[in-house]
Amino acid sequence: MAVDVNGADDPRAAVEGARRAAEGGLDVLLFGDPAVVEGAGVPSVPAPVSVAKDPDPARAVRRHPDASVVQAARAVAEGRADALVSGGSTGAALAAGLFNIKRAKGVHRPALALPLPVPGAPVTLLDVGANDVCRPEHLVQFAYFGAAFASAILGVERPRVGLLSNGTEPGKGRDEVVEAHKRLSEMSGLEFVGNVEGFDLTAGTADVVVTDGFTGNVTLKVMEGVSKRLIGAIRDAATSSARGKAGGLLLRPALGGLREDIDPESQGGAYLLGLRRLAIVPHGSFGARGWEQAIARAARGVREDVIGRTYAALEAAGALRRSPASDPVTSV
Amino acid sequence: MAVDVNGADDPRAAVEGARRAAEGGLDVLLFGDPAVVEGAGVPSVPAPVSVAKDPDPARAVRRHPDASVVQAARAVAEGRADALVSGGSTGAALAAGLFNIKRAKGVHRPALALPLPVPGAPVTLLDVGANDVCRPEHLVQFAYFGAAFASAILGVERPRVGLLSNGTEPGKGRDEVVEAHKRLSEMSGLEFVGNVEGFDLTAGTADVVVTDGFTGNVTLKVMEGVSKRLIGAIRDAATSSARGKAGGLLLRPALGGLREDIDPESQGGAYLLGLRRLAIVPHGSFGARGWEQAIARAARGVREDVIGRTYAALEAAGALRRSPASDPVTSV
Repeated sequence: MAVDVNGADDPRAAVEGARRAAEGGLDVLLFGDPAVVEGAGVPSVPAPVSVAKDPDPARAVRRHPDASVVQAARAVAEGRADALVSGGSTGAALAAGLFNIKRAKGVHRPALALPLPVPGAPVTLLDVGANDVCRPEHLVQFAYFGAAFASAILGVERPRVGLLSNGTEPGKGRDEVVEAHKRLSEMSGLEFVGNVEGFDLTAGTADVVVTDGFTGNVTLKVMEGVSKRLIGAIRDAATSSARGKAGGLLLRPALGGLREDIDPESQGGAYLLGLRRLAIVPHGSFGARGWEQAIARAARGVREDVIGRTYAALEAAGALRRSPASDPVTSV
Repeated sequence: MAVDVNGADDPRAAVEGARRAAEGGLDVLLFGDPAVVEGAGVPSVPAPVSVAKDPDPARAVRRHPDASVVQAARAVAEGRADALVSGGSTGAALAAGLFNIKRAKGVHRPALALPLPVPGAPVTLLDVGANDVCRPEHLVQFAYFGAAFASAILGVERPRVGLLSNGTEPGKGRDEVVEAHKRLSEMSGLEFVGNVEGFDLTAGTADVVVTDGFTGNVTLKVMEGVSKRLIGAIRDAATSSARGKAGGLLLRPALGGLREDIDPESQGGAYLLGLRRLAIVPHGSFGARGWEQAIARAARGVREDVIGRTYAALEAAGALRRSPASDPVTSV
């Protein structure tokens, strides 16, 4: 696992997560500021340059071949590591991944997938931000990416895949959604459950939900915003009076499982799917536990061959891109 | 107010809401099954035919000129009523409104607006489902619809209007969003706060949030789903054990305000903006209180001249549609 820690809000926490993963038997190679990555007892490459905060990550990645994320991606591209774990900037990881690790054979576009921290079981939403506009063939491929991910990395046996729309009827939604629905209904090797609506993300209707990167990004942030606002309002209620405080204290143990379920750190972060190797982007705010989880998930993805499974499923379904020239590399 | 009650899950509750509104001094004309609307002491028109459950509302509205929603919309179109209140089916209200009340002069497309029940203050989201795909000029007009609505009906003094995107930078988002951002930045008579993200719907950043009907519909349902799931999880915690129960009981009074804030009935339902008259669609599940609120909101919209204000603002900003032939009536 090539682990770039420069984008973490607290790079020392990221290094601590990597140290724990290494202690647990995983093979880790750290990239980051030598002052932070050295001395943790984990192999490391000094890479002080960071592009994680750059407003134009694609340009920054091109201009700074020595940036930690670029060096880590190159290590994966050259076979010195099997997967990329780069925290804090999905844009930088996407750009470095596309330019160095490159798209897998037959893939139109990579997608960013996020296992949403839903109470009960996570729901993998993709794309959450790599492609603002998607053609039907992109959405079809995303369905296979998501299914392979949920089965290989989350251990879901036959993942049910839904297509996000504004109604469950096959004719509902934008043109590309209607066409993707039609194609997915006729394809093999996929448990396609049809269109799903916004409610379904938290209703247990599907294990994987496919959408374009614009809608997915808005959806994800709406979910985060609503959760935060509601939990904040409940916390306020539980601190507003002596009576409320007592109630909050009594309720706390029963709410422990919920807190764990909706903690984003338990899902490892966002996953960049459709490249020749797996890439994971832990959130910048993650602590050691989130980083350790991201590295463990990456290792599981390698062990379970998520890339090979995705390719085999796309090939069996006839969903591989045919003409390599027809679909330029995504602009990030 | 022309009030069509046939689409209500419980039409008697709708009639009771109308009775209370009439008792409060509002002028109400009921449309619905005579067995339900007669004898409430409110003027009524017998209209037993309902198209509220029809899967193809546009076709149903064309085929059933005697349907309650069509009769109510016609009453508004012909000046026998000032606004339409039709519950249960936004599709039927949209179709009946478009065909009978018709688009206001200079309006490209009507939009469906929903004041989201956010703790603190409602945020008006539009479009939540009338138009799957929007051009920049549609989004620009929606901004003015939303601002006029928030000021006239919700009483917000200078409503801050945001454009929903996947990043706050002006260049973020689909092409039509980037172009709408550019135009809105240069327009007058609007407190445009730029792009807003999914988080902002619950963060108090904007009073009005503009988006296309596909993204808006998904967003709305995601919010509802997350709220329901979280509140359900907290309720489970508060009933799972004696300790949890005691905590829940103690906490309940402090949570009362929150329950009220996030109750959709307090916002009256969805609002169809951009027609020659105001139309409101209470949710099918609303009780008497929600219907009374919808009728009161409709009356306020008439009193505060939301239609006239919208036209004046669009005209002053140069945002009226110029060539009537260029933009066919929305397909619903």
